[in-house]
Amino acid sequence: MLIKNCRYLLTQNKNRDVLENVDILIMDNLIARIAENIHEKENNDKVIIFAENKIVMPGLINTHTHLGMHSLKGICDDKELHEWLDKVTTEEKKLTKEQVLQNTENGIKEAVRFGTTTIYDSYKYALERAELFQRLGVRACISETVHSLQNIPKAEQFVEMLLQDKKHLVTPIIAAHAIFSTNEDVLKAIIDLSEKYNVIRRLHLGETRRERFEVQQKTGKLPVEYLHSLGFLNERALLVHCIWLTKGEIKLLAKTQTKVSHNPISNMKLASGGIMPLIEIMEEGVVIGLGTDSVVSNNNLDLFEELKITPLLHKQYRWDPKVITPQEALDFATIDGAKVLMLDKEIGSIEVGKKADIITIDIAQHMIPLNNVLSNIVYCANGNDVCDVVIDGKIIVKDKQF
Amino acid sequence: MLIKNCRYLLTQNKNRDVLENVDILIMDNLIARIAENIHEKENNDKVIIFAENKIVMPGLINTHTHLGMHSLKGICDDKELHEWLDKVTTEEKKLTKEQVLQNTENGIKEAVRFGTTTIYDSYKYALERAELFQRLGVRACISETVHSLQNIPKAEQFVEMLLQDKKHLVTPIIAAHAIFSTNEDVLKAIIDLSEKYNVIRRLHLGETRRERFEVQQKTGKLPVEYLHSLGFLNERALLVHCIWLTKGEIKLLAKTQTKVSHNPISNMKLASGGIMPLIEIMEEGVVIGLGTDSVVSNNNLDLFEELKITPLLHKQYRWDPKVITPQEALDFATIDGAKVLMLDKEIGSIEVGKKADIITIDIAQHMIPLNNVLSNIVYCANGNDVCDVVIDGKIIVKDKQF
Repeated sequence: MLIKNCRYLLTQNKNRDVLENVDILIMDNLIARIAENIHEKENNDKVIIFAENKIVMPGLINTHTHLGMHSLKGICDDKELHEWLDKVTTEEKKLTKEQVLQNTENGIKEAVRFGTTTIYDSYKYALERAELFQRLGVRACISETVHSLQNIPKAEQFVEMLLQDKKHLVTPIIAAHAIFSTNEDVLKAIIDLSEKYNVIRRLHLGETRRERFEVQQKTGKLPVEYLHSLGFLNERALLVHCIWLTKGEIKLLAKTQTKVSHNPISNMKLASGGIMPLIEIMEEGVVIGLGTDSVVSNNNLDLFEELKITPLLHKQYRWDPKVITPQEALDFATIDGAKVLMLDKEIGSIEVGKKADIITIDIAQHMIPLNNVLSNIVYCANGNDVCDVVIDGKIIVKDKQF
Repeated sequence: MLIKNCRYLLTQNKNRDVLENVDILIMDNLIARIAENIHEKENNDKVIIFAENKIVMPGLINTHTHLGMHSLKGICDDKELHEWLDKVTTEEKKLTKEQVLQNTENGIKEAVRFGTTTIYDSYKYALERAELFQRLGVRACISETVHSLQNIPKAEQFVEMLLQDKKHLVTPIIAAHAIFSTNEDVLKAIIDLSEKYNVIRRLHLGETRRERFEVQQKTGKLPVEYLHSLGFLNERALLVHCIWLTKGEIKLLAKTQTKVSHNPISNMKLASGGIMPLIEIMEEGVVIGLGTDSVVSNNNLDLFEELKITPLLHKQYRWDPKVITPQEALDFATIDGAKVLMLDKEIGSIEVGKKADIITIDIAQHMIPLNNVLSNIVYCANGNDVCDVVIDGKIIVKDKQF
């Protein structure tokens, strides 16, 4: 495949180069060459995307969602998290396997059409969902939340199966829900599994203040300290939300190279209280990705909204418009998101040798004027502006159609 | 014109009725009838919009922007307001009259294509801009900021001219910039003009904390108290931003029936500090509209973004997901916005006798599932989802094309 005459190419490489009027040659599923005037005879499969009027950039990476809940969009707005959990959990129990898979398919289509090329999706029926992503040609990380020790063998089997198939688009993850909803034995079993297979272990953490009180009361430790005492924290640990953290806990995350997923819209909508101490987390060098969370608390799967709201929220919170730049926000959704999912050797930037996960944005429609490409991508663009989506070297969305 | 088989009609009438499968008959520029199965022979001009798969709702009302700055989008991100004003003002001085009018036209097209049908636009060259809105068929309120007493005759002439033409789509407004940038004589002259012609007088207020200190130091009064002492506040007064207010000042706004324009994205992006005390302002019964502000501090003209961010911001700020509902947010952008601009007898809801300012949203694209129409409009939709825009009974945008 050839992406011809990219008007602007946001590479997201180490120097964050923005190239103009270059071509991208894709061979099989890899980016083979980036240069001016690549000859069409080099393009084996003759597939061409014309990008004279397009911004070309890495596909976005969603580090936290639950697509299986897609049919529940809008059923439970304006509720506090624990009340929300009660209602939504009741509705979730009514979903059949077929509905969950249909929801996942609908969610994939919405997310991908809006420019997301890698989705970390956590829900029931992991194996069937993994096959669905593979069939639709969409890159994913998949987990099925482990609620008790009895689920461990099934989780292990899932990880083994996926790791055997090196060409599979899906990477397995081991997940538990949260400290308050998971017992210590399960957390320890998850650590063991994650270490044994070198896969990520994920936990919701610090989404409400109530969790802090409960964990402190029960364990005498702050939540992150408690996880550290179990051996949970290292470069394979991914903590989602992380609103309620002390500076000491942030230092512990940095020291252990734990990763973090920031879900600003979900947190604001559920009024989780406080605001994630993003700036302190950045200053300590913790790697951060963005997530939409599910459509029940967002209610979109459009990461361009997170791209805009993240800087808005933290500028406002800190009374300082300089605390976060458009470049840093875009990094969260691309190269840093890839690091969060331990996929940065493969994706997150447009560089020779990386897998071809690439999206294009039409300049003529909603990007006028284009004084600053990066500013327009972060502060103006939304998912509807995405024209083409290439995942693993294949065109998945063409002219806005999945 | 007939809008046929509206799948959902958000009337925004007094009862906030959501009707299903009704037709809307438009005669000249007015809504003539809303009923099931209106016969096509009643439709004089034969123009039909088919709305089987559409949500039909009042056009959105933008109570604060400066379209003349459209070409400056993205030139000054990540700056504090007073620093931002210095840089942006320098760039604005370079704009020729032709550029301002071209910018205004580009801004109108962006805003209207994204579902805004009435724009309060404040900038230079008021008369020429008014003619431009009229030519493009877009409803507006227009002002040219009065900086000195010498500008008063020109402002008066503008108001007189527009008020003479009862069919003109543009309503005149008298505007000054802010207390800190306007002397007292000018403020008094503006009050007189506004009272004489029964038109709105507008002022930016409480956008920064610095303004409070300066006004207090100079006058010994809080800014709203100071305005009250001048006689500025009554139902013709419109104050924009209103971030930095005490509860006493809010009560004064309520008592005097002063109107307020809330611009959450601009305020967050400029990190104006604090957050508009929206909930207190609502509780006192002050009428509130939404505004995008200019593209230099937003950077879009998409009021659907304000529709989503307004509840997100205030839920988050108050740690309470119940403080503002999707219905209240939609009211700000429609019927309350009309009240802010003193146009609520004419627009803001879809009711017989009102002017036909109506937009449609495609259900099939991005509104799936549609468990809750109002929730989807506020939390999911964006300007790109708008299909058709009718202003004053004429189709201005058809199938997303201006």
